Amino acid sequence: MTAPRSAGVSEELKEQGRSAQKRRAILDAATEVFLQKGYLATNMDEIAALAAVSKQTVYKNFPGKETLFVEIVRSVTNRAGDRVLGEMPDLAEGEDIAEYLRRYADRQLTIVLTPRVMQLRRLVIGEVGRFPELARALYDGGPGRAMTMLTALFERLAARGLLAIDDPAIAASHFNWLVMGEPLSKAMLLGDDAIPKSAELRRYAEAGVRAFLASYGK
Amino acid sequence: MTAPRSAGVSEELKEQGRSAQKRRAILDAATEVFLQKGYLATNMDEIAALAAVSKQTVYKNFPGKETLFVEIVRSVTNRAGDRVLGEMPDLAEGEDIAEYLRRYADRQLTIVLTPRVMQLRRLVIGEVGRFPELARALYDGGPGRAMTMLTALFERLAARGLLAIDDPAIAASHFNWLVMGEPLSKAMLLGDDAIPKSAELRRYAEAGVRAFLASYGK
Repeated sequence: MTAPRSAGVSEELKEQGRSAQKRRAILDAATEVFLQKGYLATNMDEIAALAAVSKQTVYKNFPGKETLFVEIVRSVTNRAGDRVLGEMPDLAEGEDIAEYLRRYADRQLTIVLTPRVMQLRRLVIGEVGRFPELARALYDGGPGRAMTMLTALFERLAARGLLAIDDPAIAASHFNWLVMGEPLSKAMLLGDDAIPKSAELRRYAEAGVRAFLASYGK
Repeated sequence: MTAPRSAGVSEELKEQGRSAQKRRAILDAATEVFLQKGYLATNMDEIAALAAVSKQTVYKNFPGKETLFVEIVRSVTNRAGDRVLGEMPDLAEGEDIAEYLRRYADRQLTIVLTPRVMQLRRLVIGEVGRFPELARALYDGGPGRAMTMLTALFERLAARGLLAIDDPAIAASHFNWLVMGEPLSKAMLLGDDAIPKSAELRRYAEAGVRAFLASYGK
């Protein structure tokens, strides 16, 4: 940290800080309002009121409701994706592959199956007909990104002779759905109360990985 | 068919026919309006207008918007379920199990992955927070029912020594998601244009069944 060189620069930095703070407040407020009222019933006035900024400030940051919502979808999805994929080192020499895959599966379930992510996913799915680009942003940053990463991972594990895989993309999809299918579908249709607790998530991870390795293991 | 015994009975039958016809017209009109405008923006006036009946007739048949929507979800889901499960004889002696499971998987994909069923599912998911009983009706009549049937099927196949299964419910869930996970998720998030054509659905069925039998076959 360096001290600002003049009062002018210091004022500028303060102004930048205030702007970033306001932008963050608008995003947080908008997330609350969208998730509570749905996309259609949300209006910019309420978001401005909850964020304690003027409506002009909202529009200065986000030209419209749709831009604002796409930004929320991107930021929630990308943050979840970063957390799932960020802590994914390659399998070490001699490390147990079942344990390695279980750890990944458990992390993915724990990070994705949260009320916030599920609520956003439901809202986005409900608006696919009217706003396909929202769902596209969620797909690309969420399942699409995970699938690309898993495909590359299984390709490397097959090349090392640790898995028997013809088509890494299909194997990635099978792994993903063996682990996520049931709990995700239940959470989507039966609501946040149907999100399994961590011990149950661990059982989904275990059963999914066991079936995956019975099929694709060596 | 027997001839009505009196003019009075004949009138009564005609009246019953007219009532059933009106009820059907209301359900069809309501399905159109709900899918086009979403749940919240739909009102009973529009439904009455599109069905060409009075608003009183709508209310006589369905006390409110929610009852009407639950009825639509039930009827679409149950009809799809009947078509998937109705043509499911037990595996014959000497019949190829892979072929048998592929036929089931292909039928399930073909019947479930249609624009109408996908649109309804998206709409219901979008309303889970406000109307959990809609999604519960869809879950019970759709995935829940399929899972119960598959669990019983795999139990019988395991008892006949044709599959190696510890937990038939987990095997049923794995089968379902190996086959449905990827195309269903894409259709949910990427819209009706992302519903695969029949040749692609057949490939999903084949790959899913192959992985399932590699894991649970003998």
